[in-house]
Amino acid sequence: MAETILSTSFVTYFIPGACLVGILFALIQWFVVSKVKVGGDSVVNGSNNGYSDSLLDSEEGGDEDAVMKKVATIQEAISEGAESFLTTEYKYLAVFMSAFSVIIFLFLGSVGGFSTDGVPCTHDETQMCAAPLANALFTTIAFILGALTSTLSGYLGMKIATYANARTALEARKSVGQAFIVAFRSGAVMGFLLAASGLLVLFVTILLFKLYFGNDWVGLYEAITGYGLGGSSVALFGRVGGGIYTKAADVGADLVGKVERNIPEDDPRNPAVIADNVGDNVGDIAGMGADLFGSFAESTCAALVISSLSSFGTERSFVAMSYPLLVSAVGIIVCLITTLFATDFFVIKNVKQIEPSLKRQLLISTVLMTIAVGIVSKLALPDTFLINVIGKDWLHAKWWHVFLCVAAGLWAGLIIGYVTEYFTSNTYSPVKEVANSCTTGAATNIIFGLALGYKSVIIPVFAISVAIYIGFSFAAMYGIAVAALGMLGTLSTGLAIDAYGPISDNAGGIAEMAGMRHSVRERTDALDAAGNTTAAIGKGFAIGSAALVSLALFGAYVSRAGISIVNVIEAQTFVGLLVGAMLPYWFSAMTMKSVGKAALAMVEEVRNQFNNNPGIMDYSVKPDYKRCVAISTDASLKEMIPPGALVMLSPIIVGTLFGVNTLAGLLAGALVSGVQIAISASNTGGAWDNAKKYIEAGASPEAQALGPKGSDAHKAAVIGDTVGDPLKDTSGPSLNILIKLMAVESLVFAPFFAAHGGILLKFIS
Amino acid sequence: MAETILSTSFVTYFIPGACLVGILFALIQWFVVSKVKVGGDSVVNGSNNGYSDSLLDSEEGGDEDAVMKKVATIQEAISEGAESFLTTEYKYLAVFMSAFSVIIFLFLGSVGGFSTDGVPCTHDETQMCAAPLANALFTTIAFILGALTSTLSGYLGMKIATYANARTALEARKSVGQAFIVAFRSGAVMGFLLAASGLLVLFVTILLFKLYFGNDWVGLYEAITGYGLGGSSVALFGRVGGGIYTKAADVGADLVGKVERNIPEDDPRNPAVIADNVGDNVGDIAGMGADLFGSFAESTCAALVISSLSSFGTERSFVAMSYPLLVSAVGIIVCLITTLFATDFFVIKNVKQIEPSLKRQLLISTVLMTIAVGIVSKLALPDTFLINVIGKDWLHAKWWHVFLCVAAGLWAGLIIGYVTEYFTSNTYSPVKEVANSCTTGAATNIIFGLALGYKSVIIPVFAISVAIYIGFSFAAMYGIAVAALGMLGTLSTGLAIDAYGPISDNAGGIAEMAGMRHSVRERTDALDAAGNTTAAIGKGFAIGSAALVSLALFGAYVSRAGISIVNVIEAQTFVGLLVGAMLPYWFSAMTMKSVGKAALAMVEEVRNQFNNNPGIMDYSVKPDYKRCVAISTDASLKEMIPPGALVMLSPIIVGTLFGVNTLAGLLAGALVSGVQIAISASNTGGAWDNAKKYIEAGASPEAQALGPKGSDAHKAAVIGDTVGDPLKDTSGPSLNILIKLMAVESLVFAPFFAAHGGILLKFIS
Repeated sequence: MAETILSTSFVTYFIPGACLVGILFALIQWFVVSKVKVGGDSVVNGSNNGYSDSLLDSEEGGDEDAVMKKVATIQEAISEGAESFLTTEYKYLAVFMSAFSVIIFLFLGSVGGFSTDGVPCTHDETQMCAAPLANALFTTIAFILGALTSTLSGYLGMKIATYANARTALEARKSVGQAFIVAFRSGAVMGFLLAASGLLVLFVTILLFKLYFGNDWVGLYEAITGYGLGGSSVALFGRVGGGIYTKAADVGADLVGKVERNIPEDDPRNPAVIADNVGDNVGDIAGMGADLFGSFAESTCAALVISSLSSFGTERSFVAMSYPLLVSAVGIIVCLITTLFATDFFVIKNVKQIEPSLKRQLLISTVLMTIAVGIVSKLALPDTFLINVIGKDWLHAKWWHVFLCVAAGLWAGLIIGYVTEYFTSNTYSPVKEVANSCTTGAATNIIFGLALGYKSVIIPVFAISVAIYIGFSFAAMYGIAVAALGMLGTLSTGLAIDAYGPISDNAGGIAEMAGMRHSVRERTDALDAAGNTTAAIGKGFAIGSAALVSLALFGAYVSRAGISIVNVIEAQTFVGLLVGAMLPYWFSAMTMKSVGKAALAMVEEVRNQFNNNPGIMDYSVKPDYKRCVAISTDASLKEMIPPGALVMLSPIIVGTLFGVNTLAGLLAGALVSGVQIAISASNTGGAWDNAKKYIEAGASPEAQALGPKGSDAHKAAVIGDTVGDPLKDTSGPSLNILIKLMAVESLVFAPFFAAHGGILLKFIS
Repeated sequence: MAETILSTSFVTYFIPGACLVGILFALIQWFVVSKVKVGGDSVVNGSNNGYSDSLLDSEEGGDEDAVMKKVATIQEAISEGAESFLTTEYKYLAVFMSAFSVIIFLFLGSVGGFSTDGVPCTHDETQMCAAPLANALFTTIAFILGALTSTLSGYLGMKIATYANARTALEARKSVGQAFIVAFRSGAVMGFLLAASGLLVLFVTILLFKLYFGNDWVGLYEAITGYGLGGSSVALFGRVGGGIYTKAADVGADLVGKVERNIPEDDPRNPAVIADNVGDNVGDIAGMGADLFGSFAESTCAALVISSLSSFGTERSFVAMSYPLLVSAVGIIVCLITTLFATDFFVIKNVKQIEPSLKRQLLISTVLMTIAVGIVSKLALPDTFLINVIGKDWLHAKWWHVFLCVAAGLWAGLIIGYVTEYFTSNTYSPVKEVANSCTTGAATNIIFGLALGYKSVIIPVFAISVAIYIGFSFAAMYGIAVAALGMLGTLSTGLAIDAYGPISDNAGGIAEMAGMRHSVRERTDALDAAGNTTAAIGKGFAIGSAALVSLALFGAYVSRAGISIVNVIEAQTFVGLLVGAMLPYWFSAMTMKSVGKAALAMVEEVRNQFNNNPGIMDYSVKPDYKRCVAISTDASLKEMIPPGALVMLSPIIVGTLFGVNTLAGLLAGALVSGVQIAISASNTGGAWDNAKKYIEAGASPEAQALGPKGSDAHKAAVIGDTVGDPLKDTSGPSLNILIKLMAVESLVFAPFFAAHGGILLKFIS
């Protein structure tokens, strides 16, 4: 048995220890943020429609107490809207998850007739694997745990964000640096809580499951895949539902407020303004948190399943088996140090330092993580070991081979991040070119924006390809799984940066609504603009890691389904590939149209309110915010079901009717096609948004020539921004989940498809 | 040896005979069209700038001679512009084709050191195949022949179209029925000339090559694949160059003329109006003709190569081997009869009969072709025979198995055609929904249009999948190749319908420019609207057949490269798949941006002319058409090179550096991803165009509520239409060629890649 330097007991304490440090760090950050007081002792509760009338009372805030009260009221309205949406969404999810738990249990149990006896393994018929009933039961439990953790992550994220937005706005009255610190610390609370609690729950679950499975590592880790499935299922509905919510409100608010009525963004006269701000929290925060948690859970599960088939598994080295968990644990410590660079080591003094500071976070975390992973790899892995290659012999690997795979993922992530920045930030030529095309109207803006999105796919695809090639060459599918883990190794930092954006966005909204000074709004705008770019970078990470994770899951699926070759020259597989490549289009058609329909309903409502109450425009009548919140809530809950069903049911239908080979083709097709649309949709949308901001800011003579706000070029830019909204915040990021979820679901159901799948084809022939 | 009912001598006479009948039929149609006289004896030639000043002289044409003169002058201007563009384009192509001929010769010759001795075959090392030098030489000759035939097809199509447009406009003064007949007959001239001459040249080439190759069927048909490569290479540049030309002119003309100056389409005051009309002929006619000729040539080549590996080849049955050619020959006869239904059996009496008449053509040709193929299959194929299955044993097939494959292709084509119509015609709800979304502005129009395009992919992909499954199950890759041939079996009719559209479009332009009565313009508009839908249907056929053709070529490539399995679980293949799926995005980014850039240049020019010469608006100053023609010409020639190079070089670079497996993945990825973008781009564009026409026509109360021209909703619709232009006429249709061309090129170079490919990977390991 190959020896590792670290001992089993060290690992058993180190992983939960790192998690607890992460959670403690999050609590400290929370404590620091909470020192900013909101509302004092005079928060108004329960006025006639849930939002205090004082929302619109005075313009420039003279008296401190009045501003405080207003901020508190707005914050409460946003928080209440978000909480009410999430609780309703979670009720729907509870029904769905219960039903799906039953399906998992029945399908997996049926493989061996709910037998309690062990069965020969699919991947190697000479070995005995866990009893079907045990597999079914533990997978279902893991599924429920994953779903609960993911739900909790999204909910906590929302709570933190709605807690932090008002505080950021208040601090922005003092200085941009202090506002930045509050927003960033709050993002860190979310990032560390999520990463640490996700890892902790997973590790504890493994330890508990081990009590039953004992030395059946394959059975243990196959059951654990349910955790990934649960996490990703919740993420799917969170992303889609939240995405439709936020964009219906945003598009609806912009189309009438900015385009027709010519009032600024976040103007309290706009009836959809509260819905828009709620959307930031349920879509960009809760949805994104659940998404990245899902990626983390799935890549860990993929790595664990695959390593249980390697010599780590056969030789039962607990330390080596725990390598993926150790990487994530070390990642928490690395991110903790990285965060200090933004909050303590350097202090932001002016607006120009914000974006570099955030970008520096990425670079610092990547460099530190590379070193840390090198050390962990040396300590936790045997010097040489064997990796299983599907359909072939074993591959001899060394510890530094695995290190190179993780590093490839890490650095590919950084490249994707920087390329995304290049294509979506208005400091570089691509976005400037899009902005300039606005002089000839909206049509050329759209054409140039679409072309930019398509072009932005090239380098990320090459970066992912290189990571795949390195990962596979050195450690087969295991290499790809750990490359994905590498890309997600700096998850806490990534999440912190990501969450920072919507918090700043909301802070700006609160500043506008509370009638704070213009200079405060300028500060929050600067925070928000940097957040836009980092949000695009975050999406780049999410899709890059999703591609690697899906491939690793795909590899695990193929192995578990007992397929040795996925040959696209065979009709079944090729048809799967073709249909799989179509699924992201089908899914996008649904989500885009849902946003369009919901936005139309919102536009109608906002227009009606403006037309029926001319007093809204001169602040004499208060708009009815609640109706807009209700429209977004209803639309998103209703509209999230069809695309959700498409993703959840496709693998089950295809696997059951057409069998494991067609399903393998389907997964590969959805993966290679989905990556492209996801990247291009996100970047096109991000570029349009920043092209608009470029014209609005007018920071250079060229930019001034296009503006000011309200010019023809600016109107054309607003149209582009509106089209980009559903692309970048609904359909684009949801595609990450589509490809991951279909893969992890196929992995969980693989034994069922292998045993009973392909009914239709058997019937035909 | 399995017997066929038909004899060799019958086949030898029947195929060229059918071709000659087709050519004769085309000449008769031409003769009928030519009886409409244009210009009388007073055509003005050689005025100061090549276009007669009389173009703008009088409004409503009172005196017959004046109208005649004007029409003749306009026609000549269009024809001259088109001819000058095409001859310049062909000069570029001549250089490129010469260089590429040398590459083909050198690469293929180098496989066996330019040896004149036979070598063991790649697909079966126990057999001897043609000497490398012979293979290199004959492939190069076939390549040049294919390129020349394709060039001729495009050129003839343009000549016919520019000959017919003025005649259609003149006949429209009499009745819509007579105008329809002229336009449709002219389309038929092109359809039959192209299909018949393409088949004839191919058949004669085969007979001549056979003098050298004798009984080496594999060598013969492998050399013949050069014909497909030549045809498709020309088609690529034709589609891309022509597509950029026509859309730069169209977008540029619309943005200034329709949006800014509020003058109607084709108004003679618009400086870009001649360039726009020239574009219809070089893009939609010449480009499309070359594209479909390429599909026909490639699917025939794919079927021939694959059948040379079947028992037809080993048993040397000339009749059975000629089955693909027989299907195409019979198709000419079937289409001839179908045409009579439109021109002679039924007479169009009013506007409403136009679209049904064109759609009936599709149905009639499909039904007749099914019967005809049934008969040909029974007569030309042995009762049972063996088909080669890559990497496996032989498959036993019966004659009616092959018939079913062809029929599957035929009917899948019809389904794709009808689905395309449903999504792009404004008689159905999808386009109406897009039109209604214009009430909330351009942004919702774009969102709904994109969603429609994504959705329209679903059924065509399923139809193609079923055809693939049937084709493969009954006759492996041969089944897929003949399914593609089936879809293209009614090529002459498809081309006739396709060409009819741009001819009618041009006729409308001439009617407007010559100042004919408003009622004449209404008639040509009705002809054009029907042409819009049939153009979309034609694009559906083109992409559906391209998918099948590419898969068949891919199968032939795999076989010729000596690969038995294309396993996506291997890193090389998967990376190829991922990068391949990215290529259509890269390509679209280039072509979209080229159109955008060229359109911006055109907008500048048109704006300047209007601003510097206010007299243009009141007809007192004549715009400078030539400068706009020059802008489109220069832009398209310059911009077609990078996307062309991307497509032509990718397979060579990947095959040479990374080897045959990565290339196989690349082809599969480009295929499954390209199909989706091509369909969605074409249909999104078609839907936007018809949504705009729906608002303009105002045929129902709902439509009237959105209009009239110049309303906010109409302006939003025009923006959608403009964005759709490059999608539906440049990047979308060019993707067909991308996927076919990469496949046929890989097939031609397969021996080189198999012998010398993968340099970089060899170097690394």
